[in-house]
Amino acid sequence: MNDPQSDNSFAAGAAYIDGRYMPIGQAAIPITDWGYRRSDVTYDVVGVWEGNFFRLEDHVRRFRSSMRKFRFEPREGDEEIKSVLNRCVALSGLKNAYVAMDCLRGRPAPGMPYHPVHARNYIAAFAIPWVWVMSPEVQKRGGHLITAETLRIPADSVDPTAKNFHWADLTRGQFEALDRGADFALLLDSEGNVTEGPGFNVFFVIDDVVLTPDAGVLEGITRKSVIEICGDLGIPAKVSKVPAAEARAADEIFLATTAGGVMPASRIDGRIMGNDRPGPISMKIQETFWAKRAKGWHATPVDYAAVAAVV
Amino acid sequence: MNDPQSDNSFAAGAAYIDGRYMPIGQAAIPITDWGYRRSDVTYDVVGVWEGNFFRLEDHVRRFRSSMRKFRFEPREGDEEIKSVLNRCVALSGLKNAYVAMDCLRGRPAPGMPYHPVHARNYIAAFAIPWVWVMSPEVQKRGGHLITAETLRIPADSVDPTAKNFHWADLTRGQFEALDRGADFALLLDSEGNVTEGPGFNVFFVIDDVVLTPDAGVLEGITRKSVIEICGDLGIPAKVSKVPAAEARAADEIFLATTAGGVMPASRIDGRIMGNDRPGPISMKIQETFWAKRAKGWHATPVDYAAVAAVV
Repeated sequence: MNDPQSDNSFAAGAAYIDGRYMPIGQAAIPITDWGYRRSDVTYDVVGVWEGNFFRLEDHVRRFRSSMRKFRFEPREGDEEIKSVLNRCVALSGLKNAYVAMDCLRGRPAPGMPYHPVHARNYIAAFAIPWVWVMSPEVQKRGGHLITAETLRIPADSVDPTAKNFHWADLTRGQFEALDRGADFALLLDSEGNVTEGPGFNVFFVIDDVVLTPDAGVLEGITRKSVIEICGDLGIPAKVSKVPAAEARAADEIFLATTAGGVMPASRIDGRIMGNDRPGPISMKIQETFWAKRAKGWHATPVDYAAVAAVV
Repeated sequence: MNDPQSDNSFAAGAAYIDGRYMPIGQAAIPITDWGYRRSDVTYDVVGVWEGNFFRLEDHVRRFRSSMRKFRFEPREGDEEIKSVLNRCVALSGLKNAYVAMDCLRGRPAPGMPYHPVHARNYIAAFAIPWVWVMSPEVQKRGGHLITAETLRIPADSVDPTAKNFHWADLTRGQFEALDRGADFALLLDSEGNVTEGPGFNVFFVIDDVVLTPDAGVLEGITRKSVIEICGDLGIPAKVSKVPAAEARAADEIFLATTAGGVMPASRIDGRIMGNDRPGPISMKIQETFWAKRAKGWHATPVDYAAVAAVV
């Protein structure tokens, strides 16, 4: 650990846990930590593409907001978190990276009352090679979606705007998708409106208007980017309720996530949209997204030289 | 690891992860494992008291049922799991232990599609010193409860009968309890009926009848034991809906969990029950529970000699 640069196992990824840096293969959470045992943890994920963080400030701001909502108080401030993330990427040397930041509850020390307020919260982070939620091949043909029977956990139980690992509903939806020969599940709320899917927001193109659900969802940063791009392109965009019946009859659908950008779909619940390929508005938004990224839109360059300096 | 008995760090607890035994301080979950990152994991907890497992068969049977519900397929069969649990306790030498068994999703290997079906599931387990969810001091005065504003995650999102770490609602409830000067939160469902609290089932004594919620709850093994004890004692017991208003007007309340047995309450939402002490029926059930345990009720002796044999 004294000379991390000499350890080439960092090439598979680099992690930080509560003050210490290590190769990703060594990064682990104590089995007794409530961050694992009660999923008492919040997180965020920022992408690095061609050596640049995308909307780093937005991600760290949302991470802090999630921490406040769950009443986490780690010792690291926002500037330190940004420096930790940079250092994880720099240690790994990765140009395209999936960069996660977690804040875990910890666990009350032995003898303390068994209440989360008595635990010392801490930060973990890591950079690993870029992950595509939807593979480039599937992006080309368009994802096949279903609306799942399993309902999204409602906001009066777990606040979806505070990013969390409560994914059993989303995981169950993914098994429903598998059983029905599809790629991804969209989850509905108890009133039959679309919410989100496993790790992504969803957009519908209906009569040349782009719609995305207004409630029961993470306020995604790629979602926000899509809405900004719609503004640039003069495409009307609306944040509103989307009943399942409208979703199933949409002209086009696409998904938005950090780990994949703008990802078009071509089928929903067995219905083929358009020509069974990504629709033209989805493609236009996807192209614009990556073109803007390539031009440095909301980019923060990774400081790869930071490795030596911070050891 | 070759001679675990010589390593006295096992005294703090012993763990098993995917085929390997280790002192509890070394037991950790990879930060990238979906068991942590998506809380894609199920678990169970069995107690050891004075050298005996309590209802070991019931716990392992429920664990298997939870695994099936979440579509986990670890390599260990039920007999092997029992032997792993025994060995964890034997390694630790603990006479009173909290013994957990987890089944984690794992994570798809690099290059595999990003779907849980492509992950190799595995078992983790550990034995640590006995944990009291409610300290013996609080048990003596009776717990102070609240009904929380936060609602329990509904069964159409996450099946509560498959034991899981989706605790953000329960944790939030515990912060509500803290803010209101109480010990524990009871969570309601969206129709205003009581469900359960963080790690326990709840019982109400109303007009000499013992009631416990019928839906939205874990089918607790201590809960089942309480119902059996009511039968022994000739106390009418009923599994039914319990509206919050009835709960708040109950004559007595007690909680039931593996990590605490039968735990009486004395206040709810600021209202003092009886003489601000555990009620007589709660006390009778609590005494009977521990008296039966002492006589070997549903006991499986820990085989402490198994350590050497299995190395």
